[in-house]
Amino acid sequence: MALVQAPKANGVSKHKDRSNLIPFSSRLKDGRALAQDVWSIFNAANLPSDCINLGQGYMNFAPPTWVTEAAESALNTVVANHYSHPKGRIRLREAISKFYGPTLGRTLDTENEILVTSGANEGQYSVFVAFLEQGDEVIMFEPYFDQYLPSVTFNGGKPVYVPLHPNKTKLHPTSNDWAIDFEELRRAVTPRTKMIIVNTPHNPVGKVFTRDELEKIAAIAEEFNLLVMSDEVYDCLVFDNKEHVRIATLPGMWDRTVTVGSAGKAFAATGWRVGWLIGPPSIIGPTLAATTRIVFCSNSPLQEAAAAGLEQATERGFFEKQLAEYAERREVLCNAFERLGMKYTLPEGSYFVLLDISEVDIPDDYPFPASLDGRGRDFRACWFIAMEVGVSSIPVSEFYCEEHCSIGESFARFAFCKDLETLKAAGERLQNLKKFLKK
Amino acid sequence: MALVQAPKANGVSKHKDRSNLIPFSSRLKDGRALAQDVWSIFNAANLPSDCINLGQGYMNFAPPTWVTEAAESALNTVVANHYSHPKGRIRLREAISKFYGPTLGRTLDTENEILVTSGANEGQYSVFVAFLEQGDEVIMFEPYFDQYLPSVTFNGGKPVYVPLHPNKTKLHPTSNDWAIDFEELRRAVTPRTKMIIVNTPHNPVGKVFTRDELEKIAAIAEEFNLLVMSDEVYDCLVFDNKEHVRIATLPGMWDRTVTVGSAGKAFAATGWRVGWLIGPPSIIGPTLAATTRIVFCSNSPLQEAAAAGLEQATERGFFEKQLAEYAERREVLCNAFERLGMKYTLPEGSYFVLLDISEVDIPDDYPFPASLDGRGRDFRACWFIAMEVGVSSIPVSEFYCEEHCSIGESFARFAFCKDLETLKAAGERLQNLKKFLKK
Repeated sequence: MALVQAPKANGVSKHKDRSNLIPFSSRLKDGRALAQDVWSIFNAANLPSDCINLGQGYMNFAPPTWVTEAAESALNTVVANHYSHPKGRIRLREAISKFYGPTLGRTLDTENEILVTSGANEGQYSVFVAFLEQGDEVIMFEPYFDQYLPSVTFNGGKPVYVPLHPNKTKLHPTSNDWAIDFEELRRAVTPRTKMIIVNTPHNPVGKVFTRDELEKIAAIAEEFNLLVMSDEVYDCLVFDNKEHVRIATLPGMWDRTVTVGSAGKAFAATGWRVGWLIGPPSIIGPTLAATTRIVFCSNSPLQEAAAAGLEQATERGFFEKQLAEYAERREVLCNAFERLGMKYTLPEGSYFVLLDISEVDIPDDYPFPASLDGRGRDFRACWFIAMEVGVSSIPVSEFYCEEHCSIGESFARFAFCKDLETLKAAGERLQNLKKFLKK
Repeated sequence: MALVQAPKANGVSKHKDRSNLIPFSSRLKDGRALAQDVWSIFNAANLPSDCINLGQGYMNFAPPTWVTEAAESALNTVVANHYSHPKGRIRLREAISKFYGPTLGRTLDTENEILVTSGANEGQYSVFVAFLEQGDEVIMFEPYFDQYLPSVTFNGGKPVYVPLHPNKTKLHPTSNDWAIDFEELRRAVTPRTKMIIVNTPHNPVGKVFTRDELEKIAAIAEEFNLLVMSDEVYDCLVFDNKEHVRIATLPGMWDRTVTVGSAGKAFAATGWRVGWLIGPPSIIGPTLAATTRIVFCSNSPLQEAAAAGLEQATERGFFEKQLAEYAERREVLCNAFERLGMKYTLPEGSYFVLLDISEVDIPDDYPFPASLDGRGRDFRACWFIAMEVGVSSIPVSEFYCEEHCSIGESFARFAFCKDLETLKAAGERLQNLKKFLKK
């Protein structure tokens, strides 16, 4: 490997410090990209092995067999084991068109208005790649889905946070009581604002944005020419006959809105990594160019299965049945909190409940791991609850910027995308919290 | 939706041109991201329906049943339908460790040295996200895998091209005759060079880089502290007992090399989107941070299947048998070119053959579609061949920068990852080219 006689390359000094590691990109220094995230800290591996996991939002039940059977059929073909078109398999795009078209009040063009992505997450990342310019600002409501933050900063964007305000006085608040201060939202808009992220039904609040709220957001988006990314991955989980309004259906909004959907949430298959974007060609086109380079295409067999799911869901009454099951799960968990006499936010959508943990009396000398140092009180409360009663949850301050962190510190997020038996067992265990509540 | 009394947001003039579409990011303006790519132009849909497709590199046969059965088993569990760890499923990471460890001469740490990605493509994209700083230069050999270019420019990088030089005089050139000019390579290094991409076996040349070549590249990487991305997705397709050298195994190179692998290439499952990266924690760590935000995790059922593939491949003698099958396919295709009397590059690896199309006599008045306007002579030749003899291929100038385009214009890429019957039929059809060869 001697290079003794090798010529010098253009103006590069030889042997520039070889001992140095190759430095990673500065984009990883923002957006908490390298910080230990809440999922790692509250990973099942770090908690007692018999802890009931209501932390991460994945189901402990399988997708419907009629959907997995479609995946098996696909595996037994040749073509569905090979590359899909970067836009997504035509069968899935057609199924999305048929299923979503009526909910959006329009006929969807499968070639230019639908894009299948490797999970909703990668779809959203692709939108940021396609639209963010260095320094562009992206407004997100707090608490926000934690993936938004680094996905924005990785692509040169700057997150701007607008908190939803919980109702502190109501004894029985619902997710609808988490309010947007529209003056605050308008003040957040600057000449660099490019995009606003709406998430309805909302993770982790469970809020289903009302038509009135969405109209006000739409008016601001129109006024300041903003792109709206509407993350609606929980759209099949809206309870109590509450109306799920797609912001893309409001007057003038189709042209500036990309609607995000997910097979993982719809069919209890979070590990399939099949999601989709719906919007006008002016948004889908550049996003296709982005996703094509990022992943080239999404996995084929599970696209076929997702297509089968959407094709058959209506005639099978699948989403109605699934919704009733989730409503029962919500009931079991909320009932446990009722019995405890603890305050919680009744969610009108999604599969999370925020428990108000202000009244949990954490002993000063309780032994917490170093990973909680410098984190909010909610991190300690969630840890304490996991250790003392054996049910894990996720501290909500993780989903706030530093400035607004204190709002989140009052809450723990419990997921109810679990079978009834698990939820009932968790509910029983949670009763043991009673002795740790402030008198 | 009236906002008559709404206050003005910070210094933003109301009603900034509403008629404008929301502009996409300037990053899409580089790297040919929005140009019509070769895959769209030579898409089967644009060619006669009975055209034999030797263009795109996907198999027209299925993955082995013992591998797809493992996917089916995974679909019948609960956990393998839900989120995997962003690092990848532990079963697959262990299988990669056992399979690759010996080929890299080391014991691989499944927690910090292996990362499962959503196809090799997304893995490589994640490396660019994790390591490129605005203006960093990335050296790639031409012809280059076309996804590298926009993946680099999307993340602020600048591609620097170093052509492999074909041998014009040899009557029977092999891929080994495509030579690196090491003076040229050294001249390509500047103070902004961050990374060099090695692709061995090489797409589309089929070149298996020799130990001597890799040692010279390694010396330059060491001298100038460069990261090496070694794309080895065709590592199980090395013919004629040629040695496949992993650059990561050369002295000092482990610490600066990330090795890229692919289940799609290994198990005839290009649509599964399961790939992997192997490297030191200093490379895998930041890349994990990137991929976690881009896709969160890769699809679970097909990771299980890929794990089964790697676990059982050795005892089943799978890769040996598969290699023999590909050798026979290569033989059929090359034999067709021999009979035609056309010059081609015998590939020592991968599943592509470059045919020298200089002698194809394209009539001046042949009707070409507008999509070929401004493209190289090879685009016209490939179109002509597809139309006249019914076999599609891919023009190679697409894989060159403008400056070096003329090198690629002499070649068409034919893929032989097709069953024997298809290849034999294509070989027969290709004989009809004889009448179009220059006398």
